[in-house]
Amino acid sequence: MGRPVYLKGIMDKQKLRWNGWGLREAPDTLGDKAEGIWNWLGAYTGLGTLPHTPALPLEKITLPNTRLSGEELQTLEGMLSRDKVKTDKYERAYHARGRSYHDMLHLRGGCLEHAPDAVVYPQTIEEIEAVIRYADANALALVPYGGGSSVVGGVTPLLRAGQRAVVTVDMALMSRILEIDKHTMTARIETGIYGPELERQLQAEGVTLGHYPQSFEYSTLGGWIATRGAGHQSNKYGKAEDWLVSARVVTPRGIWNTEDFPKSAAGPMLRDLTPGSEGVFGIIVDARVHIREVPEEKEYRAWFFQDFDSAVQATRLLLQHEIQTAMIRVSDINETFFYSVMHGGAEVAENGPMGFCLMLVGFEGTTEQVAHQRSRAEAILSQCGGADMGGSMGKLWLTTRFETPYLRDPMLDHGLGVDTVETAVDWNRLPQLHRNVSAALKEALSRHNPNPGAKGLAMAHVSHSYWNGASLYFTFVFPRTPQAEIEQWLAIKREVSDAIVENGGTISHHHGTGTDHLPWMAREKGPIAYGMLKSLKADLDPNGTMNPGKLIEF
Amino acid sequence: MGRPVYLKGIMDKQKLRWNGWGLREAPDTLGDKAEGIWNWLGAYTGLGTLPHTPALPLEKITLPNTRLSGEELQTLEGMLSRDKVKTDKYERAYHARGRSYHDMLHLRGGCLEHAPDAVVYPQTIEEIEAVIRYADANALALVPYGGGSSVVGGVTPLLRAGQRAVVTVDMALMSRILEIDKHTMTARIETGIYGPELERQLQAEGVTLGHYPQSFEYSTLGGWIATRGAGHQSNKYGKAEDWLVSARVVTPRGIWNTEDFPKSAAGPMLRDLTPGSEGVFGIIVDARVHIREVPEEKEYRAWFFQDFDSAVQATRLLLQHEIQTAMIRVSDINETFFYSVMHGGAEVAENGPMGFCLMLVGFEGTTEQVAHQRSRAEAILSQCGGADMGGSMGKLWLTTRFETPYLRDPMLDHGLGVDTVETAVDWNRLPQLHRNVSAALKEALSRHNPNPGAKGLAMAHVSHSYWNGASLYFTFVFPRTPQAEIEQWLAIKREVSDAIVENGGTISHHHGTGTDHLPWMAREKGPIAYGMLKSLKADLDPNGTMNPGKLIEF
Repeated sequence: MGRPVYLKGIMDKQKLRWNGWGLREAPDTLGDKAEGIWNWLGAYTGLGTLPHTPALPLEKITLPNTRLSGEELQTLEGMLSRDKVKTDKYERAYHARGRSYHDMLHLRGGCLEHAPDAVVYPQTIEEIEAVIRYADANALALVPYGGGSSVVGGVTPLLRAGQRAVVTVDMALMSRILEIDKHTMTARIETGIYGPELERQLQAEGVTLGHYPQSFEYSTLGGWIATRGAGHQSNKYGKAEDWLVSARVVTPRGIWNTEDFPKSAAGPMLRDLTPGSEGVFGIIVDARVHIREVPEEKEYRAWFFQDFDSAVQATRLLLQHEIQTAMIRVSDINETFFYSVMHGGAEVAENGPMGFCLMLVGFEGTTEQVAHQRSRAEAILSQCGGADMGGSMGKLWLTTRFETPYLRDPMLDHGLGVDTVETAVDWNRLPQLHRNVSAALKEALSRHNPNPGAKGLAMAHVSHSYWNGASLYFTFVFPRTPQAEIEQWLAIKREVSDAIVENGGTISHHHGTGTDHLPWMAREKGPIAYGMLKSLKADLDPNGTMNPGKLIEF
Repeated sequence: MGRPVYLKGIMDKQKLRWNGWGLREAPDTLGDKAEGIWNWLGAYTGLGTLPHTPALPLEKITLPNTRLSGEELQTLEGMLSRDKVKTDKYERAYHARGRSYHDMLHLRGGCLEHAPDAVVYPQTIEEIEAVIRYADANALALVPYGGGSSVVGGVTPLLRAGQRAVVTVDMALMSRILEIDKHTMTARIETGIYGPELERQLQAEGVTLGHYPQSFEYSTLGGWIATRGAGHQSNKYGKAEDWLVSARVVTPRGIWNTEDFPKSAAGPMLRDLTPGSEGVFGIIVDARVHIREVPEEKEYRAWFFQDFDSAVQATRLLLQHEIQTAMIRVSDINETFFYSVMHGGAEVAENGPMGFCLMLVGFEGTTEQVAHQRSRAEAILSQCGGADMGGSMGKLWLTTRFETPYLRDPMLDHGLGVDTVETAVDWNRLPQLHRNVSAALKEALSRHNPNPGAKGLAMAHVSHSYWNGASLYFTFVFPRTPQAEIEQWLAIKREVSDAIVENGGTISHHHGTGTDHLPWMAREKGPIAYGMLKSLKADLDPNGTMNPGKLIEF
């Protein structure tokens, strides 16, 4: 598999796919194995030879006219500068949607009815304040935009009733590291910085944030906070709400500097409302975050388990015995099989699923810490029936992990759909949730299937773990229903989300809410807490200027 | 020093001091050393022979009449039962104030103008709902009450403009452990349970919450959460906001069941607003908390340092090297000296301060964990100039730590005042805050002093530590100004609190806000976040029924 190259400094959107994942020029991650894998997938899904279903090129797509008047655009240009207010087709198309499967259906099909009326690139807090004031006074909606990698509709430019146009605020030019303080091990950073650039600059100083979500290469600090994201190594480095120390948020009410203390008892910590706020209160412009020394050693090892429940049990014990891991990732039998085929090629599939589960455990820290924690872990894993498979699979995962999202575009080109849902649940309910949601998914994939013989693949892994429970991440691949792809997705999404909630899971562990999970929010929060969210929204953004249609109904 | 006896089960308030700390019958913690110590304190403070300043006995105090009508009392009795609605003098006096130095001045002086008009003891959520509904509809204020050990005026029965009377809701009868779940390592517990009973029942099952604040013996789970409290061992077990999994809160709007997931990204976690809410949103009736196995071993060791800053430096390195301690407590030179005298008697004082700082480090866990972390800690402490003094001082502290609050009553009987303030601040500002606040305290104690020759003692310790900073806890002892004790306290409190805030500290790390820190809240939170708190209050408790006068102006 080829490695896409990190862009240095500011992200050049011309080099990125406006309607797909990552770099235009990225090599095919399947490489030589591609043909065999497509044949296998065609046979497995019952489609036979997979169809050719390319995306509509941008030239063939017509965008709606911008609803902003020349005068309004001039006013925006006066606040920023002419080159920081974009209304060209590429910029508007690029920002028309996030990067979910649902978004891809729209983008690839040329349905860009939600393209923003303009995209602005502020460079200072004062510019952001001016844009928010102007939008708020002139019935414009604003969409805060980091890397745009949302998979829940978090950056779709929507209007609230009464609003006339929508402007996307792309934060890419606010990407400076303002301060690295090794005495408090915190760094203050502008939120428009992309993952690779953030880690490059921090690591040049010997420190790291350690936040590596699957979207790492094309997502930003601001997006990680706004969605309460989690990196692969959140067992060590924490989720966004754990590593966030303080934030500065520009709201329609003014600038909100959150509390900035190691801890406090001066009332509730309002800072805790920024992670997960998804731009509906304002724009997070900079943040102070917890940094750590770059680990001396990273060791990722694989263990095999006979069944998923034993591997889950082992995970629980590692956490409850306070063994410090950076990551524990437990694939179920289906996922273990699927990724064996993706990595090994179609011939691996010949004998069918191998009937075991892969657990990857990562340790990061000083050499001494890694050795100590690993030896403590080994004892527990072996007691639970795990077989130590050494370091090669862990190493492979670590070096190729950011290639996985590149698999989606070619799948979409081959008549297939692919999506993921994720949740978190306590240990008591996890095995049942895994079984029931897997079954609901399988049923939904087959019920909403174009032809009776066809079938989908559903698989899952434990992605992040806590002393009292873990997150479960489901991936599904299925034949698309031509001409009714969106209805098909909506039906599958609704059924699997209902199953998650009915089995005690949260509607999202790290993707966020956006538009796509909004229908489940009122139930999840309950009437009191949902009302609190609305009260906060009414306080900070009474006109509903900020990111309408996301997170809550307002 | 003698050990006070834990009361089993429900706390019997007749056995407790209504105007002081703990058990009426508790032995004098100074024992044989008392006379020498009083002489030393008299000489040190410049008072000479300390005066005899006893508290006014309850018989000599007249309480204001209850403002509740017979009909209203009957209605309350109908909701609960006759024996759960108290209007007798003892109950009203007992609940008239919390247990701060400021409260003591009122209680001991017989100023009980804020005594509640009634005290109710609900036993079910339905009873609490009925009481809140009734109060909310009839212009009554309600004060949620746990152990009443607040040192910031958190339980003073105050009225909001327009309210006619105030009822204190004592949660002592809601003290059941509802569930201990070792699979998720969580327990669901009613919030009226006192510390000793909570730990007795948990430890009988082999588990612990590990939350041991200084007030442990006479405070409750609900109070710990409502104030965002911290136990001595919060380095291991966390503050209330860390170990709280979920809570159920009865608000005037209805019952709020917070989110109950290991983690989530479904919008901000509103649960995070319960710790620190201090009863102003509603009454926290039960909570799910993180439990752990009772540690196989507890080892507490002492180290001596030549100066405070070196000891603070060592603390920072322990945290930043991720060495797992249960507690690190660093007394400055003054405090090290003061406690040497309290433990060792007046003869210890003869040579004056010894010129070193005591650090106590606690390790809790399996024998293997304790040994491993201790050996890692030793290397750092020794590098920073710490001298290992073995285990005896740690053991002494561990076995006598709950006796310290008993020192206050005899001090008050001897014409002295004693109070504490605490904060948290990052490592960059900590040494300067320590110096400046110590100086401000010394100056305030001398400026607001009855006679020119007299002086106070001021001392401090690091009580809780984090990777990016720590909390600092200041204690001060001083000659009281007869007839102007409250004015004296208000002036000292204002000046030292201003100094904390000016040096970058939070107004409280674990005591909370109550009435006493309210004047600093708007500045600390800033206009946006302070407005958010008010919006939440207006949403959940529009009539201001719940604990008026605390936390925020409303």
